[in-house]
Amino acid sequence: MSELRVGLLGLGTIGTGVARILLQQESLISRRLGKPVRLVAAADRDLTRDRGIDLSGVRLGDDAMDVVRAEDVDLVVELIGGYEPARSFVVAALEHGKHVVTANKALIAKHGEELFALAADRGLAIGFEAAVGGGIPCLKALREGCAANAIQSIYGILNGTCNFILTKMEQEGAAYDAVLREAQALGYAEADPTFDVEGIDTAHKLAILAGMAFGARIRFDEVYTEGINRITPVDIAAAAELGYRIKLLGIAKPHDEQIEMRVHPTLVPFDSQLANVNDSYNAVMISGDFVEHTMYFGRGAGERPTASAVVADIMDIARAHPDGIGHLPPPMGFVDQARRDLATMPMADVACEYYVRLMVRDEPGVIAAVTSILADHRISLEAIMQKERHATNNVPVVMLTHETREGNLQAAIARITALDAVGDDALILRKESFAA
Amino acid sequence: MSELRVGLLGLGTIGTGVARILLQQESLISRRLGKPVRLVAAADRDLTRDRGIDLSGVRLGDDAMDVVRAEDVDLVVELIGGYEPARSFVVAALEHGKHVVTANKALIAKHGEELFALAADRGLAIGFEAAVGGGIPCLKALREGCAANAIQSIYGILNGTCNFILTKMEQEGAAYDAVLREAQALGYAEADPTFDVEGIDTAHKLAILAGMAFGARIRFDEVYTEGINRITPVDIAAAAELGYRIKLLGIAKPHDEQIEMRVHPTLVPFDSQLANVNDSYNAVMISGDFVEHTMYFGRGAGERPTASAVVADIMDIARAHPDGIGHLPPPMGFVDQARRDLATMPMADVACEYYVRLMVRDEPGVIAAVTSILADHRISLEAIMQKERHATNNVPVVMLTHETREGNLQAAIARITALDAVGDDALILRKESFAA
Repeated sequence: MSELRVGLLGLGTIGTGVARILLQQESLISRRLGKPVRLVAAADRDLTRDRGIDLSGVRLGDDAMDVVRAEDVDLVVELIGGYEPARSFVVAALEHGKHVVTANKALIAKHGEELFALAADRGLAIGFEAAVGGGIPCLKALREGCAANAIQSIYGILNGTCNFILTKMEQEGAAYDAVLREAQALGYAEADPTFDVEGIDTAHKLAILAGMAFGARIRFDEVYTEGINRITPVDIAAAAELGYRIKLLGIAKPHDEQIEMRVHPTLVPFDSQLANVNDSYNAVMISGDFVEHTMYFGRGAGERPTASAVVADIMDIARAHPDGIGHLPPPMGFVDQARRDLATMPMADVACEYYVRLMVRDEPGVIAAVTSILADHRISLEAIMQKERHATNNVPVVMLTHETREGNLQAAIARITALDAVGDDALILRKESFAA
Repeated sequence: MSELRVGLLGLGTIGTGVARILLQQESLISRRLGKPVRLVAAADRDLTRDRGIDLSGVRLGDDAMDVVRAEDVDLVVELIGGYEPARSFVVAALEHGKHVVTANKALIAKHGEELFALAADRGLAIGFEAAVGGGIPCLKALREGCAANAIQSIYGILNGTCNFILTKMEQEGAAYDAVLREAQALGYAEADPTFDVEGIDTAHKLAILAGMAFGARIRFDEVYTEGINRITPVDIAAAAELGYRIKLLGIAKPHDEQIEMRVHPTLVPFDSQLANVNDSYNAVMISGDFVEHTMYFGRGAGERPTASAVVADIMDIARAHPDGIGHLPPPMGFVDQARRDLATMPMADVACEYYVRLMVRDEPGVIAAVTSILADHRISLEAIMQKERHATNNVPVVMLTHETREGNLQAAIARITALDAVGDDALILRKESFAA
């Protein structure tokens, strides 16, 4: 029945949200747990800003290490973000015997294994629900809710910025650059949007999901990653004509001794659940050999939804406190000695269906030359479409292929773009089918 | 590190699925838990049928009480269904010191409070994830994933049979009776479909969700319940023309000292997430004051998905075994002494927007008389539409109202159907708007 005392590192957007919940929902949290969770300390470099909450009962300082070392803190919430100094503070918190909760996907994707080992050594919990899918309790669903299943695939719309941009490009027929600027003005994209639009943020989250799904160590550096910046209105229109919407997906599938992990813009059928996840919403589709297809939808970012997931982790740990974490699920859903070091499938071996957009000279024989090269590589076409005709310029030709190995497709495209009549700016997207 | 030994009551569809998982995924389950879960005994009245699984290592019998009393059983899984004898067996299992997992929504909705009290007295766990949403881990999401939130609303498509029938009626323009027979032939509806099509099954599930969401005792008998059997192709077409799809929803919202709980066919906007949950799929939308809107989608029934949820519960309990359940969340998500006896809001006080379909004589002045009565009751219209004209028959007139109290709407409709020119077979549906 002992209360859980929380120390916060970082009073930015999410940190403010976490403080807000812990103060505002104090009675609700006690009714659920049968004991209180108390915010006792917080550190931030900027303590002058008005955050719209009454922190008078909280010990404030500008040194994170004061929180990490505090005798009266049982659990440290890391909301600084990025690799360092977040990693050092989390290591120090664990070394000082504090449980840790974080929303930091970069940290878990890159340093998770080190932190899990340290936490396990000390008998401490480490929670990171908020690192993937923001407010959506998708890690809990995967780790516990679907625990009876051999997971067969993970498909996620995991980055709200990219989903917002792709939704706007479709709705407004606008170019990527214009929509990115709009997203920045609205606060949906950072001033430096690299991590989001290049797919790195999605890759962080996918690496965590894949490790958890397949009982494997996290291998973020091996996730194949493409961003959304080469998508044009022509592609969005062509995909729509063929019955598809373009989404940035993180995809993970198990193979015998390998894991397939890839992040890229993907054609998804209009009538699939994922196609209807728009604006800045996120969703994760988890399929297992017994549960079949399940999907988890909600806000993937933002102060209040992300703080909701952080506090859910705190509450799970509070139930175990102070007795010890022996009854909590292990952070990655498998006991550590049962987790495996699975190789990542080389992208060349991954089998996909493809959308290929070529810019070609509008003259006789070009299509014949292109399709003859595809036939050489035994790539068969589901559709081929010439979008518009300008006498003087190259015109876009769009093709959908049936399934083939990525290496094979890339070899064929290299030969095709070497043709005189074909521009070297081919765009290759991948297409997925869904039963739900 | 002690193994958990399971006894099964009922080897029907779900029971066979649970046995299949426990046998087939034995190694996966051990890798997750760090200890085995072992199926030691099962009881069913019919032991002759071939279930396609090798039960040679399992003690089989036809007396449920043998399993309930067995010294070597730690946890009893009740998959008999219905109120009795399921209730008696669960009571006996708890009295014999066994944890209980069940997929029985009727049992939990009607007798849950009695069973929770008994389990708490004995320090035993009672799991019922499979009772709501089949394979979807939606109770875990509500109880734990969204635990930091004051829940603001629950909307659920909770019955696969009804959703299948409504989807087919829309796709085929077919009448209810014809589609029901098709669903029965396909095994999507029972020979006696009463519990499903009259909304009772949905009401069972909604009562459980509402109690869990709002920290209240379950009051199944007070759920307002309407089924789908009065919906006609005319209504589906009219709703579509207005931008809506008709779904059987379970809806729960908190008020100051009351809970609103209702099950009825509902107009939902085409572009909402719930409108795109089709066929026999289920989904639950849970909205909270911090997490905003979240949705959980998947198979709401069937051997394998439902068994997935049952085994997830077994695994959660296995982690606590044999030390005791002190660290597990309480079954309804609030410690018992913090749960409240909240009254159910009388349906007459609930505020809704309405779809009203009248059958009227096609003559001058009828619409004026109808709208004049609505104006008397201060009910304003969003739309009014006369669907077709037959000189000799009554014609359907469809109206959408702005929000008004149910009691007020019903009073107005009583006056309207008393008009000579209006048939007494008015259909009243309710309409919901969604931010997601």
